[in-house]
Amino acid sequence: MTRQLTIALDAMGGDHAPGVILDGANIARERHPDLRFLICGDQARIDKALAPYPRLREQVTIRHTDEVVTAEDKPGQALRRGRNSSMALAIEAVREGEAQVAVSAGNTGALMALAKFMLRTMPGIDRPALATLLPSSRGESVMLDLGANVECDERNLVEFAVMGAAFARTALGVPRPTVALLNVGVEELKGHDLVKGAGQTLKQSPLPLEFAGFIEGDGIAEGAVDVIVTDGFTGNVALKTAEGTARMIAGLMKNAFLSSWLARLGYLFARPGLRALQDHLDPNNHNGAVFLGLNGLVVKSHGGANAVGIASAIGVAYDMAADDLGARIAADMETSASQAGETGEVAAS
Amino acid sequence: MTRQLTIALDAMGGDHAPGVILDGANIARERHPDLRFLICGDQARIDKALAPYPRLREQVTIRHTDEVVTAEDKPGQALRRGRNSSMALAIEAVREGEAQVAVSAGNTGALMALAKFMLRTMPGIDRPALATLLPSSRGESVMLDLGANVECDERNLVEFAVMGAAFARTALGVPRPTVALLNVGVEELKGHDLVKGAGQTLKQSPLPLEFAGFIEGDGIAEGAVDVIVTDGFTGNVALKTAEGTARMIAGLMKNAFLSSWLARLGYLFARPGLRALQDHLDPNNHNGAVFLGLNGLVVKSHGGANAVGIASAIGVAYDMAADDLGARIAADMETSASQAGETGEVAAS
Repeated sequence: MTRQLTIALDAMGGDHAPGVILDGANIARERHPDLRFLICGDQARIDKALAPYPRLREQVTIRHTDEVVTAEDKPGQALRRGRNSSMALAIEAVREGEAQVAVSAGNTGALMALAKFMLRTMPGIDRPALATLLPSSRGESVMLDLGANVECDERNLVEFAVMGAAFARTALGVPRPTVALLNVGVEELKGHDLVKGAGQTLKQSPLPLEFAGFIEGDGIAEGAVDVIVTDGFTGNVALKTAEGTARMIAGLMKNAFLSSWLARLGYLFARPGLRALQDHLDPNNHNGAVFLGLNGLVVKSHGGANAVGIASAIGVAYDMAADDLGARIAADMETSASQAGETGEVAAS
Repeated sequence: MTRQLTIALDAMGGDHAPGVILDGANIARERHPDLRFLICGDQARIDKALAPYPRLREQVTIRHTDEVVTAEDKPGQALRRGRNSSMALAIEAVREGEAQVAVSAGNTGALMALAKFMLRTMPGIDRPALATLLPSSRGESVMLDLGANVECDERNLVEFAVMGAAFARTALGVPRPTVALLNVGVEELKGHDLVKGAGQTLKQSPLPLEFAGFIEGDGIAEGAVDVIVTDGFTGNVALKTAEGTARMIAGLMKNAFLSSWLARLGYLFARPGLRALQDHLDPNNHNGAVFLGLNGLVVKSHGGANAVGIASAIGVAYDMAADDLGARIAADMETSASQAGETGEVAAS
């Protein structure tokens, strides 16, 4: 029997809140009937959005607030004035142990700032990171950091590797994930000092992961490894470049299929296969970026996600909470540290 | 009447040399019948590869050498031992004024090292950069640096903007190109110090370009601007991520169209439109990365390019040489410097 899990939902974040958030919660409830929700936001609007879902209603507690963090709020504003917002209440529920994980489709910068401030970074971790699942030719990979830290040092990259591997074990079900550093070439001498230094450390450290060296940008879509580690600047650019390229091609494909009546007919004939392709690339099916390294679990949904996307993000949150990912990361960090200590002693003796 | 242009071709670089190089040269000759070639490499093998092209043969001078730079050679090895290689002879021809531009499909690192050493950086430019044309939803954009400089400072990014704009005027035919810095957000406060600093300078400087601020990774494929400026680490990752994503989708599409007999038929019906899409995304049709900022023009082709790809790279080289791009960059740099001086005087008075 699995233990009872509660997810704290920010009902007011994202482009189509609160309707789509509760539509998504209802899909997630069907997949995980044992799930409970603590829903934070405007009571009247949430009640209205819950009306079509009597069953979901039974598994829901509503925590009312009038306040919201808007898409325009700067992280500093959210910290100063957003402490009673729906976003903050969801994070608070995790801090107080009322929920095991918080999910929000709101302002990323504000969510990062509030989560970091309210939950604090885990002992032994210098900086939290934002990770996500990405589609690849072979299935899915994890990439981090996606922008929590635009400037990183070597220690950060090594910690991202450990946290990313723990997340991959949970999200991909791989017992010993392969991990690589994103670089401009695969040879040891390639890249700047940061990536070369992190590469050396990862190569020499006894970590609960399989370090595969460097990969180049095209290794991401190839699915060359389970976990791609990089600084938040490069990771953010790579993620958005991949998304933008996929969107461009989807647009051009649509034009191709609309270019003649024969082409339209061709689309109909090929539709089942093309649907599978669309599904695989649809960001909604990989929705749910995860803050790793905090004393509590927080999942960020795309602001523009549809109900399926919200359900995916809740699914990621469910898996993380069910697996007690925070405890796994803490254990992995301790193991790495103690093994590194032992190795150090051997080397020194 | 256009002046007589000569392109120095490294016949021995790339995966399918020398055959594909001369096949490509022949396609380029048909497009630019006035073009002459100085072909560097193994005389016997070049003669054989030229056999099918009697007309091209008349426009060709061969410079024999037995030596080649291999794909495995490190830049340092190329500098020490590659000075009589086909690659070096092509660059030398540019330095000596026998050719206006050199084209090679060989080892990128070696080509950068040899070109920089033999041609030297232009006066007023701190570091040369590697730029390329990329397909976008709106046509093509220029992106630089693609890896010539894995670490950059503010001055480098500003110079890349000026050089990239000059290249865009030539390659895209846009009189006053829009230029943006690649960043993790579009607001002025986003990003690390390097990109924020360069943003401030570009905003305040009177340059022969339209500075459009920051763009995120998805702006590349969107074609949000004519020129995307970034450091060589980020640019290399972004370019390869985009290429990898396009390749993944092409592979998945192929599987979709092979998934049933009906889907195969559908492909046949939609083929004309899909062909246009494939053509637009085919790297061979955007082949030819350009070293900007040297005292001489050098174009790098993909190592795996086919004859159409080699012809594209030669086409880029032709346009640059016909436009005297080096002189344009020098003039732009001088104008920027003198205008910045004037502005400085006004501000100081």
